[in-house]
Amino acid sequence: MITLYSFPHSRSHRVSWTLEELGLEYQCRHVALDKGEGQTDAHLARHPDGKVPVIEDGDVCLFESAPICRYLADTYGDGALLPSDPVARAQVDQWLSFIVTELEQPLWNQAKHTFALPEDKRIAAVLPVCAWEFQRALSALERRYNGQEYLVGNTFTLADMFLAHTLSWAVSMKHRLPENLQRYRERHNQRPAMAKAAEKEKAAASA
Amino acid sequence: MITLYSFPHSRSHRVSWTLEELGLEYQCRHVALDKGEGQTDAHLARHPDGKVPVIEDGDVCLFESAPICRYLADTYGDGALLPSDPVARAQVDQWLSFIVTELEQPLWNQAKHTFALPEDKRIAAVLPVCAWEFQRALSALERRYNGQEYLVGNTFTLADMFLAHTLSWAVSMKHRLPENLQRYRERHNQRPAMAKAAEKEKAAASA
Repeated sequence: MITLYSFPHSRSHRVSWTLEELGLEYQCRHVALDKGEGQTDAHLARHPDGKVPVIEDGDVCLFESAPICRYLADTYGDGALLPSDPVARAQVDQWLSFIVTELEQPLWNQAKHTFALPEDKRIAAVLPVCAWEFQRALSALERRYNGQEYLVGNTFTLADMFLAHTLSWAVSMKHRLPENLQRYRERHNQRPAMAKAAEKEKAAASA
Repeated sequence: MITLYSFPHSRSHRVSWTLEELGLEYQCRHVALDKGEGQTDAHLARHPDGKVPVIEDGDVCLFESAPICRYLADTYGDGALLPSDPVARAQVDQWLSFIVTELEQPLWNQAKHTFALPEDKRIAAVLPVCAWEFQRALSALERRYNGQEYLVGNTFTLADMFLAHTLSWAVSMKHRLPENLQRYRERHNQRPAMAKAAEKEKAAASA
């Protein structure tokens, strides 16, 4: 069975969501990052920087959310989450990259300078710059997103999952979204697989 | 013919290097980002944030370096730069993601707060934190890289290209590399395709 190393409200949710969309059996193992469990030898053998998500699937051990989800969709999916057509695939891939490098990084920098970095490394003055950069990335996104149901083609793909997840992260950090992206986020967050995934990570955390 | 929109010493070099490794015919079109050409309507129609690289390949127009290189390797390659075996492919993919989200982001933040952001958004106090974060990412990399010739398997893949490129970026920003990564970088930078690609971007810039 596939094992997902997870932490609630982190990027591991993208992987649990993918696993649920694919209808796969898996177990969640909570890594208590807040108690230093990421930095144990056992976890560093799975993830060289002591983070989540990580999956183990037989002999395969992978870290980084986008590659894990691509691997799962390629290995176990039917081409819906990640199209096999090279052009549609490249378009999903392009948005995944934009989301994790442009849209997410200002949020992650904001989180780092609020709580994730060691206290003596946090620079409060950078927080309004992060907010400005996030709005700039949203504006770039709005040059392509005009209220359509999906980012690429006519089905829900990994690009939609990552965008909905990242927009929810932004909302939890009190960023304002344009109305059509707010609706997009709410619509995709209503997928049953999303709720099941969150429930499973939460249960693992309190086990 | 494939068109690459480029700027010397930027991430477009990863794409020109890939095109040269694949032996493809292509033209470089220089985008004078330093003169505001990225923000023209024509370029914003290609890249929603006005950056490079972008490629046009017939009807296909893509931005973001890693997805472009994956698309080129999948469409025109023989499986060397990007393996077709799902596990080897996922491992290359994992390293690409680590490189662009963990290793490169501190360098990019450093560049942003040195020259790339509008002057009133630059926070000098964040620069030593970027340096600390880069060294932390290098330490994570060193938990997996012990001097082997290639990051994944026994051939040069996109993971090696992106790592060599990002390490060179770090060196140009005066970061110190561990000796084995310095050797790794120098070795891969000697590939003829790398020099040809740099030459072609430079020629486009001075045309």
